Amino acid sequence: MTQVKLYDTTLRDGMGGQGMSLSVGEKLKVVHALDALGVHFVEAGFPSSNPKEAELFERLAGEELGQATIAAFGMTRRRGLAAEDDEALHVLAECFAPVVCLVGKSWKLHLEKVTKVSAEENLAMIADSIAFCRERGKRPVFDAEHFFDGYRDDPGFALECVRAAAEAGAENVTLCDTNGGSLPSFVAEATAAVVSGLGDAAEVGIHTHNDAECAVANSLAAVEAGARLVQGCVNGYGERCGNANLTSILPALQLKMGFDVVSASQLASLSSTSHYLDELCNMTPDPNRAYVGRNAFAHKAGMHAAGVAADARTFEHLDPAEVGNEREILASELSGKATIRSAAERAGLELGDDAAANAVEELKRLEHRGYHYEAAQASFELLLRREAGVYEPLFELESFRVTTEKREGGEVETEATIKVVVDGERYMEVAEGNGPVNALDKALRAALKRRYPHLAEIELTNYKVRILDESHGTGAITRVLLDSTDHKREWGTIGVSENIIEASWEALVDSLAYAFQQG
Amino acid sequence: MTQVKLYDTTLRDGMGGQGMSLSVGEKLKVVHALDALGVHFVEAGFPSSNPKEAELFERLAGEELGQATIAAFGMTRRRGLAAEDDEALHVLAECFAPVVCLVGKSWKLHLEKVTKVSAEENLAMIADSIAFCRERGKRPVFDAEHFFDGYRDDPGFALECVRAAAEAGAENVTLCDTNGGSLPSFVAEATAAVVSGLGDAAEVGIHTHNDAECAVANSLAAVEAGARLVQGCVNGYGERCGNANLTSILPALQLKMGFDVVSASQLASLSSTSHYLDELCNMTPDPNRAYVGRNAFAHKAGMHAAGVAADARTFEHLDPAEVGNEREILASELSGKATIRSAAERAGLELGDDAAANAVEELKRLEHRGYHYEAAQASFELLLRREAGVYEPLFELESFRVTTEKREGGEVETEATIKVVVDGERYMEVAEGNGPVNALDKALRAALKRRYPHLAEIELTNYKVRILDESHGTGAITRVLLDSTDHKREWGTIGVSENIIEASWEALVDSLAYAFQQG
Repeated sequence: MTQVKLYDTTLRDGMGGQGMSLSVGEKLKVVHALDALGVHFVEAGFPSSNPKEAELFERLAGEELGQATIAAFGMTRRRGLAAEDDEALHVLAECFAPVVCLVGKSWKLHLEKVTKVSAEENLAMIADSIAFCRERGKRPVFDAEHFFDGYRDDPGFALECVRAAAEAGAENVTLCDTNGGSLPSFVAEATAAVVSGLGDAAEVGIHTHNDAECAVANSLAAVEAGARLVQGCVNGYGERCGNANLTSILPALQLKMGFDVVSASQLASLSSTSHYLDELCNMTPDPNRAYVGRNAFAHKAGMHAAGVAADARTFEHLDPAEVGNEREILASELSGKATIRSAAERAGLELGDDAAANAVEELKRLEHRGYHYEAAQASFELLLRREAGVYEPLFELESFRVTTEKREGGEVETEATIKVVVDGERYMEVAEGNGPVNALDKALRAALKRRYPHLAEIELTNYKVRILDESHGTGAITRVLLDSTDHKREWGTIGVSENIIEASWEALVDSLAYAFQQG
Repeated sequence: MTQVKLYDTTLRDGMGGQGMSLSVGEKLKVVHALDALGVHFVEAGFPSSNPKEAELFERLAGEELGQATIAAFGMTRRRGLAAEDDEALHVLAECFAPVVCLVGKSWKLHLEKVTKVSAEENLAMIADSIAFCRERGKRPVFDAEHFFDGYRDDPGFALECVRAAAEAGAENVTLCDTNGGSLPSFVAEATAAVVSGLGDAAEVGIHTHNDAECAVANSLAAVEAGARLVQGCVNGYGERCGNANLTSILPALQLKMGFDVVSASQLASLSSTSHYLDELCNMTPDPNRAYVGRNAFAHKAGMHAAGVAADARTFEHLDPAEVGNEREILASELSGKATIRSAAERAGLELGDDAAANAVEELKRLEHRGYHYEAAQASFELLLRREAGVYEPLFELESFRVTTEKREGGEVETEATIKVVVDGERYMEVAEGNGPVNALDKALRAALKRRYPHLAEIELTNYKVRILDESHGTGAITRVLLDSTDHKREWGTIGVSENIIEASWEALVDSLAYAFQQG
C-alpha cells in the first residue's frame, strides 16, 4: 500500500486564522516541531511577499531538518504573460525550497468572475507555470482551488485542469475544497474520478476546510478514494472554521486505516506537539479536541470507569498512550514516576523512589492549578531540582512594589522598587520600565548583578499571558509563559496566579534561577 | 423522500460535558429553544434518577411546546428480572413523556466484561423492556450502545440485538458509536446493513460522538445509508470530545442534502439559537464553529473580499443569512477604501470619500504600530466612528495609578485609583483587584456606573497579551486583545503600547465605549 504523506500549511494557510501571528523565530520552532512529529512537507509561505517571509526563507535554508521537506507557495503565472516574465514565479524557482506549490483555478465560475480568463488561457496558465518550475529543478505540487465546486459544476473542465498540471510535470495535484462546503461522499466520488483519470501521471492530494465540520472526514474519504497526500494544519488552524486538522487525521490514518504515516514514537508525541504549537501560537488548547484534548479520554466515575478498569477497550476507541494522551480516571502513578525519573535523568539529576513519587504528586497539584510545563521546560527542571533537594535559591525577597501612573494626555510611567537579600547582603533598587514586568525585571537584575554579573546578559525574548478559566468574571487565573535567552540557549519558564504581576514574577524568578543553575 | 428528524440529547448525554450544569429553569429554556428551532425530539433525562430530574419532568408535563416531543431516557431491564419487576422501567412507563429511549448492549465484549450476561439473556432484556414500554402506550426508541464496535466484532449478533428491539415494538432503533471512534465509510456500511436487515420493522437512527472528529460526517453518512433520526446536541455538547453537533448536521441535511428538516425561518434562527444555548450553558461560543461561529463567514480583504463582492458564491459555500449568520470582511493592511466603506455601512455609518481615505491612512498607520483589528471588530468600528466624526467619548481621564506590592511570604496586593470627569462631574475611586487590569477596570467602572449603571453588566471574558516585535530586549510592543460580553452580544477590542497597563487600558476603554455606543 502506498503510504500517505502529510503536508502542513500552518505557516501559510493557517496564518489566516484569527489571532495567528508568529515571529520568524517562532515559525522556525513550528517547522522543527512539525519535523519532529514526522510531517513530510512543511509549507513555509510565499518566499517573495514581504521582508519577514524573505528572512524566514533565508534562515530556513540553513536549518537542518530530520525528514521534512520545505515547500514554498505561490500562484500560477498571471494571465497574458509568459511564465518567464512572471517575477513571482522566478522568486519561487530561485528559492531554496525543493517543493513549490502553485495554486490555480479549476472552477469556471472563478474564471468568469474572478480571474476573467478563458478556459484555454486557464489551462495554459497551469501548464506553463508547472513546467517552468519543473524545468528549474523543482518538485511542483498543483493546488486545484475550489476543485470540488468546479467538479460539481463541470466535471470535464475540472479534470482537464488537473490533467494539465499532471502532464506539465506536477508531482502531485491536490484537490482543494477551498470554501469547505463539500461532504464526504461527494469528495470520495470526485477524488476517485481524478485518481482513475490521472492514473500514474501524478499523485493526488487533498486539501479541505472545516466549514461543514467535515474537513477531517473529507480528507479521510479522499484517502480511501486514492489520495496519498493530505494538506492541513496541526490543531486545525486556519481562517473561518479552520483547515483540516492534521492532529485528527494522522491518528485515524495510522491507527484506524492501517497506513504507516509516522513512527509509533512520533505518533506518541502528538498530544505534546499539539499543545506546544498552541502555546507558540498563543491559542488556548481545546480541552475537547479529538485524540489530544485534555478531556479526550476523560471518563466519568461509575459504569464507564468500571468498564475501563475491566478492559479499556470497552469504552475507549484506542489506547491514549498511542497518541501521547492520558486517561483521566486512572492515576497512572507508575508511568508517571517512570516519566518523571527519565526527565530527571535527562537533566542530570538523580531522583530516588520517594522523591519521584513526591514529584508526581507535586506535578499533579500544580497542573490542577493551571501550570503546564510543555512550553516551560526550565520551570519543570527547577521543580525536579527542588524535589531532588538540589535547588539553590538565588536570593530572598523582602518586598517589591510596582506602580504605573498616567495623567491626562501624558505618557504612562512605571516604576518598580525591590528589596532582596543575596548571600546575606541586603540590596535595594529602583528602576523604571516600559511596563510593570520590565520595571520589575530591571530592578531585580540591578540588585542581583552586584553579586552575579552574568545575569545581566539574559534577555527576555517572549512573554505570553493567558487567562485560564472560563468561569467568567474576576476570579480568573492568569498563566504567564516567558522565554529567555543567554544568546547560546533559550529556555521557557512559567508562572500562574490570579495576579498577572505575581505570575510574571514567578516566571521571571524561574528564568534567572535556571540561568544561575546552568552557570 | 422520508424526512429526517432531529433528536437532541443536550439535557441527558450533553450534560456529561465538562462544565455543564443547568438548573431546572434553565433546562426548560433549553427545551423551548430547541422546540423553536424545530428539533423533533428533546430528550429530557432520566425521570427517576433524582429530585431535580423529577421536578423537571413534573414541570415539563405542563409546558406547551410547538412541535417537539419529549423523550425520557432509561436502560433495558436488569438481568435475571422480569420487566414488570424492574422499578426503573415502571417509572419510565409512568412518566408523561410519549417517547422513551432505552439503551442496551449489542457488543459481546460488553456482555462479557460489563453486564456479564449471556447473548440470549441480552436479547431477552432488550425485547422484554421494549415490549413493556410499548404495551404501556409508549413510543420506544432503542439505543444500541457501542453498535459499531459490536458490528465490527460480530455483525450477526449486533443485528440480532437491533432486530429484537424492532420485533418487540421499537419505533426506532438508533445505532450508537458510543466511544466515537468509527469512521464514516464504516458507519455507512453498517447502517446500510441494518436498514436493509430491518426493512419496515423499525426506522433507523444514528447517535455519534466526536472522538475521531467525525461525528457530523458519521451522522450524515448514516443518513445517506438510510437512517432517518439523528441524535446529537446543539453546539456538540457532551463528554470527552462531545456528541454529534446538531448545529452542523441540520444545515448540511437541509441545504446540502435536500431534506426538509425544519422551516427556512427556523433554520435562519440557527446562529442565534446556538449563541443563546452557549449563554445558557455558560460556554464561550467557539468563533470558528461551522455555520454559526463569528468567523464562519469572515473573509480577508483582498482577493477573497473582491470575489465575494463580485459574486458571493465564488468564496462562500452558502448564504450566511440562511443559517442566520453574517458575512464579515476583515480589515487588514490590504484594505482599500471600498472595504472600509462597506464596513462602515454595516456599522450604520456614513463615510464620505475623504473620511474613507483618512480611515485607510489611519488604519495603515495603526497596523504598522501593531494594531490588528481582525479579532477586535469593536475597536475597528470605534475607529470608523472617529473618522466619521460621530465618536462620543464616555469620559475624560484626569489620572490613574495602579500599584502592586509583595512582601516576603505574603500575597501580592493590587490597588488602583482613578480620577475621571463624566458629563462635567469629577469622580474619584479606588479599587482592589486580583491584578492591575482587574483593579483598574473595577475603579473605572465604579466611577462610571454613577452615570451609566448598565456598564456594570459587562463582563470581560478573555484577555490575551502578546509581545509584538522581535527586536528582543526591552523596547517591546505589547498587544492586548480583550473580549467582552453583555450576555446578548460579544465584542473584541484592542490596545497596543510598550506598557501592558496602557495597552490594557486602551482595550478596556474601547470595550466600554463600544457598549456605550450600542446603548
